[in-house]
Amino acid sequence: MSARVSVFIATSLDGFIARKDGSLDWLDAANETVPPGEDCGYREFMQSVDALVMGRNTFEKVLSFGDWPYGDTAVTVLSRNPISFPDSLPSTVKHSSEDPQTLCKRLSNEGVKHIYVDGGITIQRFLAVGLVDDILITVIPVLLGEGIPLFSPLAQDIPLKHTGTKTFDFGFVQLQYDVNRNA
Amino acid sequence: MSARVSVFIATSLDGFIARKDGSLDWLDAANETVPPGEDCGYREFMQSVDALVMGRNTFEKVLSFGDWPYGDTAVTVLSRNPISFPDSLPSTVKHSSEDPQTLCKRLSNEGVKHIYVDGGITIQRFLAVGLVDDILITVIPVLLGEGIPLFSPLAQDIPLKHTGTKTFDFGFVQLQYDVNRNA
Repeated sequence: MSARVSVFIATSLDGFIARKDGSLDWLDAANETVPPGEDCGYREFMQSVDALVMGRNTFEKVLSFGDWPYGDTAVTVLSRNPISFPDSLPSTVKHSSEDPQTLCKRLSNEGVKHIYVDGGITIQRFLAVGLVDDILITVIPVLLGEGIPLFSPLAQDIPLKHTGTKTFDFGFVQLQYDVNRNA
Repeated sequence: MSARVSVFIATSLDGFIARKDGSLDWLDAANETVPPGEDCGYREFMQSVDALVMGRNTFEKVLSFGDWPYGDTAVTVLSRNPISFPDSLPSTVKHSSEDPQTLCKRLSNEGVKHIYVDGGITIQRFLAVGLVDDILITVIPVLLGEGIPLFSPLAQDIPLKHTGTKTFDFGFVQLQYDVNRNA
């Protein structure tokens, strides 16, 4: 059976996941308004995830934060070129140059049930080939004007099914959609 | 006192108000899923509006629908160039080449309390000069990939205050924000 593929990401109201230079200062500032202990469902989501897939840009961003935040969750870093991982990283972090279909098929065959796809380009690649099952966007109450967009041009419209919305007192809104894989 | 300026608009989840050619087929299709009698707050909003401001593109789009939908609500069509209005339009429809500040000031002096600004470029022009007070976006559950965006580059971030979210059984979500004019 094919693993479920989820997107869980924050954007500005105008749809950016980072500034043009990758900066998340606006998101860090917003997160400072979040009460201690509130993680907007992230921990619960991560507990449901068997495998995380991200692109090289996101990987390098995560590395820049210092401590590796994903414990020994299986992480696949997609990149056409080889990556030399720091020794400090757990052995569960692996490089792959597979395309999304091949990777999903392999992970599913290895018993993975739930894949978390992260990073703009990687999410866009998975969406483009109909491999995303659900999307949760945490909308941060700010307009950035420009930056790295979550979405990109598509060969055709992708219809969505709204499955829920959650609002937080500090102004975040989580929009949740299922994607019809066969649309 | 300065009139309150509101945005009330629908976008795809990826932030487009129309396809590149201005087409709203995706929105028309979505509206067919809306139960009869449900207008997602539009009528109530329009009843609170004294004056509508739109750009030439939006004006021509509205004209193409056939019947003029705004009754005798005061409508200002912004355009650098003169516009010759069809005789069928009410005399409450007027052309102006004023910039947003001048127009808002004049309308406020004329007793207008609540301005509805419509159309991508016009909304962007008002946002850019800090003249928008609140934004209501009806998010339609579809990804278009490309089109005419609601938002555009800004000189600086615009912080927002989330004031409410409403979800509809047919999958629309309305996000509502106040804009701090002096941010």
